[in-house]
This record gives sequence, C-alpha cells and structure tokens, in this order.
Amino acid sequence: MEKKKNGGKNVTVVDCTIRDGGLINKWQFDDKMVRAVFQAVNASGVDYMEIGYRASEKMFPPHEYGAWRFSRDAKINEIIASENLNMKLGVMVDIGRVDEEDILTADESPLSFIRVATYLKDVKKAIALANMAADKGYEAFINIMAISTVNDFDLAAGLKEIEKHAPVTAVTVVDSYGALNCDSSKHLVAVFKDNLDSKKVGFHGHNNLQLGFANTIAAMEAGASFCDATITGIGRAAGNCPLELLLTYLDDPRFDIEPIFQIMQDEFVELRKKIEWGYLIPYMITGMLNEHPRVAIAVRNSEEKDNYADFYRKLTTPECYSN
Amino acid sequence: MEKKKNGGKNVTVVDCTIRDGGLINKWQFDDKMVRAVFQAVNASGVDYMEIGYRASEKMFPPHEYGAWRFSRDAKINEIIASENLNMKLGVMVDIGRVDEEDILTADESPLSFIRVATYLKDVKKAIALANMAADKGYEAFINIMAISTVNDFDLAAGLKEIEKHAPVTAVTVVDSYGALNCDSSKHLVAVFKDNLDSKKVGFHGHNNLQLGFANTIAAMEAGASFCDATITGIGRAAGNCPLELLLTYLDDPRFDIEPIFQIMQDEFVELRKKIEWGYLIPYMITGMLNEHPRVAIAVRNSEEKDNYADFYRKLTTPECYSN
Repeated sequence: MEKKKNGGKNVTVVDCTIRDGGLINKWQFDDKMVRAVFQAVNASGVDYMEIGYRASEKMFPPHEYGAWRFSRDAKINEIIASENLNMKLGVMVDIGRVDEEDILTADESPLSFIRVATYLKDVKKAIALANMAADKGYEAFINIMAISTVNDFDLAAGLKEIEKHAPVTAVTVVDSYGALNCDSSKHLVAVFKDNLDSKKVGFHGHNNLQLGFANTIAAMEAGASFCDATITGIGRAAGNCPLELLLTYLDDPRFDIEPIFQIMQDEFVELRKKIEWGYLIPYMITGMLNEHPRVAIAVRNSEEKDNYADFYRKLTTPECYSN
Repeated sequence: MEKKKNGGKNVTVVDCTIRDGGLINKWQFDDKMVRAVFQAVNASGVDYMEIGYRASEKMFPPHEYGAWRFSRDAKINEIIASENLNMKLGVMVDIGRVDEEDILTADESPLSFIRVATYLKDVKKAIALANMAADKGYEAFINIMAISTVNDFDLAAGLKEIEKHAPVTAVTVVDSYGALNCDSSKHLVAVFKDNLDSKKVGFHGHNNLQLGFANTIAAMEAGASFCDATITGIGRAAGNCPLELLLTYLDDPRFDIEPIFQIMQDEFVELRKKIEWGYLIPYMITGMLNEHPRVAIAVRNSEEKDNYADFYRKLTTPECYSN
C-alpha cells in the first residue's frame, strides 16, 4: 500500500495486546504467551506497551482473574527477566478499581507509565488519578471512553479541565462502541486538539465497522500522534486496530514487523481456537447503532450467536410503543 | 456511525456476492443458496446484481464448475421464477473467455447489463467486448483490474480510449491485490474522473488491509458513484467491501438491510464452515507487498496455512541475490 508520507516519525505506537485482549478471557493468558508477546513487541520497535490493568485484589477476586487484571510489579519483572527494555512499559487503571497502595513509586517499579481510563462524566476523578500517578513518578495519560456518546460541548469542557489540571502526555479518543467512521474520528481529534494546547492526542479504534485501522489513519491525518493497536487486532468484541497494519502503514525504519508475524504464527493461531474476536455481525450491529457491545457479547455467548437478523430486530424494534 | 450526508442518493450499489464469492468455490453454490441471495438483494433496494460470470462452456468444462461460471439465461430465469425484479441483473465477462454466441440479445435475456473485466494492457479488447454487449442491447461497463500495478500515464491513455470508443455507463477501479489505502483510492478515482468526461467512476475494493469498506468511502468522497459490495464481504481471498456496511453507511431510505441480515443468518453461517474468506494474514502480506493473492491462496490451501512469518520471509527474501 501507499505509505504514510512522513514515515510515521511523529507517531507513537502503543501496544495493548494483553491489556485489551484480556477483556475477552479475564486476562487468563499463561506466562509463556505473555512473555512471547512482550518479547515480540519489544523487538518490533513499538514505543509503549500497556501490559495489563492494575487493579486492587480487594475488588477482583484473584482466583477469578488472570495475572494481567492486576499486573503486579513482581509479575512484570518475571516476564521481563533478563531482556533489555527497548520500550516503555505501563498499565491501565480504572477509576475506583485501584487503591493508592496498589501503586508503588516509579523508581520501585518496572513500569514507566500509567493510563487512566475514564468516561467523560468522571473526568475530575480521572484527573485526580493521573495526578497521583504523576506524583509517584510515572508518565501519565488519560483515555476517554465511549466517545461516540458525548456531545462536543461537554467534551470541550472536560478536555479544558484536563488541559488545566492533569499532568498527562496525551489524551486518547476511545471509540468503545466501534461506532465512528473516518469523518467522525477526524472531527473528534480536532475537538481534542482545539482544547488541549499542551497535550498530544491519542486514538484507540475498534473494528465493529471494519474501520479500526482506517479510523486510526484518519485520526493521524487530523493530528493524533499517539495510537493504540493490538497484534491481530485482538480485543473485546470486534477488537482493535491491528498492530501489523499500523506498523506497515507507518513504514518507519525503527519498526520491524517480522517478530509480530512470528508471534502470530507461534501463539495466536492456537489462541484463536480458544477465544473469539474480530468483525462479527452482532458487533457490527451494535457499532452501527452506537451501542455498547455488551449485548452483542452476550448473544455471541448464547445459542443465538449467529441469529443476526433476530438480533437486529430485537435491537431496533421499539418495544415500548406497545405500552 | 455518522452517516453519509447526502444519503447516498448519488451512489449506485452493485452486489457481486455470487460472482465474486464463486471465485472461492468455482461457483458451486446450490440453487437454494443463489435464489436466497437473489431474493435478499432484490428485497434490499440494491440497484444492480451481478449474478455470475458468463463464460463459454467450450473453455470451462461444465463438470468442473458451478452454474455461475456460465450464468446461462435459462438458469437465471429459474432463479428469478415469479419474483418481480426491483433491480438490474447482469453478468461479468472476461476477455477471451466468452464467445459472441454465448450472448443473446438483451430482449431475449433476463439480463440488462454486462461488465467487462480487463487488465489495462487489454483495454482495446475490453472496448470491443463492451461494444458487442452494447450492440446487443445491454448496458455495458468496464472494470479495470490490478489497478495498483499500473502507472498514471498508461492509465490515462487507456481511460481516454474508453472515453472515446466504449459506450459504457461506468468504468470501475478494481483493487485486485487489496493494496490500496484511502489516499491511493482517492487518487485513482481522481485519475479516472479526469479522463472520463462522460462516464461514471466505479470502485471495487478488497479487504487485505481491512480497508475494503474504508477505501469505498474514500472513493465515494473522491466522486465514485458506482460501488461494488458483497454480503459479509465474501469474495476471493480477503474478500470485498461488505454490503451490510455500505448500505448502513449510505443511509438511504431506499435500502432495507434486514433481508441482508436474514440471509446471513440463513445461509452464510453454514457457508463459512465450508469455504474461507476475509482478513487473514497471508492475504494481508500480499496486500502490503502489492502482489496478486494467488501465492497467499496457495499457502492457505497447504499445511503451511498459518505459518505467517515463514510466508512473509519467503516473499521478502531476495533469493536471486545468491546468484
């Protein structure tokens, strides 16, 4: 394909393979798999790797969740072992799901960044958490989820709060519902840029409408410079922008795509036999209707999984009219 | 998702489900399946349906190929049965693979259009075939394949020939290798428009880089008004722009997407268990390298089907350097 003209030198790539992929299987990846992903991403020239969520074990019973729901520092050190780190390692935190005591200071941790995931309505809580992370010595970020459900007026106000009060490198547009197209992605990046004088803008696409990659390109064209991707696009429901496509498009000599193909061959072929992600019609339908994918995930886990027309009718028939 | 502002009223949609899908299984769809696709597309408001190839039985042994390699008029009449035709029905012809005697005049046939598929180098032969179709009373079209491998200078010359000598409604950009992105798709549509004063421009995308739909949107933005799609994106290798996504995006009240979801539920779930199409890494690799998918199709039909890194190395290692 035709390559990005500037060689992608201004774009920072964030791998979220384990963090976002874990939303499918409660982060129950074995250590061999996580180490192989870590090594492949570390060898590929990708800039940042978000290896999991950091959460409090008081809130999530550890016997129900895999290690990457918590991403304890000791566990991360086991994965790194004797590898040289060519990239920054970090975790995502959700508001209200992590305690301050779960986060050591950065000089005691293998991590160098923390991303706060938030809905727009909770942006002040996100700012507080980002400040806590920054105070402990981490590079901080904020991801604003469900961005296809907010209006520009509220969004501008929230972004201005972040601009004023949050010591973050970037704020990321997160298309949680997979409802954006290239035009709306560009529009949102422009709103972010207009309200964030001192921060970079990031983009995290979902593939409900087969636009995860295309929207990421559009976002970059509009000025996003911090882009999320996952190997093979793994991620909850329709999944994400595939890392292999983003690296190919950016066409920067700092990237080596071969380790990414190698780990797909070594690990992802088997993984696909166990868990499901990607463009599937129920996810397409929630994307087109701008709804959370949870109803589509539920139908994919039921015997009705392939009853696409029934699912479409269920979601589009206004039952309340009969009342 | 955000909808196309003009409601897609200027865009003609061409379903190629059976014609392009048949490239996977030598058109061996049973009549029940083809009738169900015909009825769903006919009910959906789609403008044109290309139901198969028309080819000479002298060149393709009928026992090796399904009926839609030939799409005989009698067979098409069987499929239509007593349905009212809400759309135009047509076939694709390849240069040198059809005889004049295979094509009755339009008033003797249920078909109303014929599309000629050609490589740029054969454009004069395509013009002759398009004239034959037009002389017999059909609406004629030309599709230029492998468009990612031609230079603009040769392309402009070929298009000028078509403009001058071919009585066609539209000329279609066909991304046979799935190598285009949104920028190069727009560029090619612009070259077509510049050289075709009296014809519409069409677009036929492939999904090797998960851009089949996105490139179709980009092409429409650049002025393409005759767009190909298939149900679930079925088509050789990585497949095509999915009809369900295109209809949703166009958001025109003349379209009804429900019959498309219904036939996916009734027919395509089972079909997917038998034949393969869509975004798979070997197709992504040929797309990124701007190569014909045939080597990737061969690897998918071998025991090496999931050895992505091996395949990538094979295609990118310059063996001739050792000579």
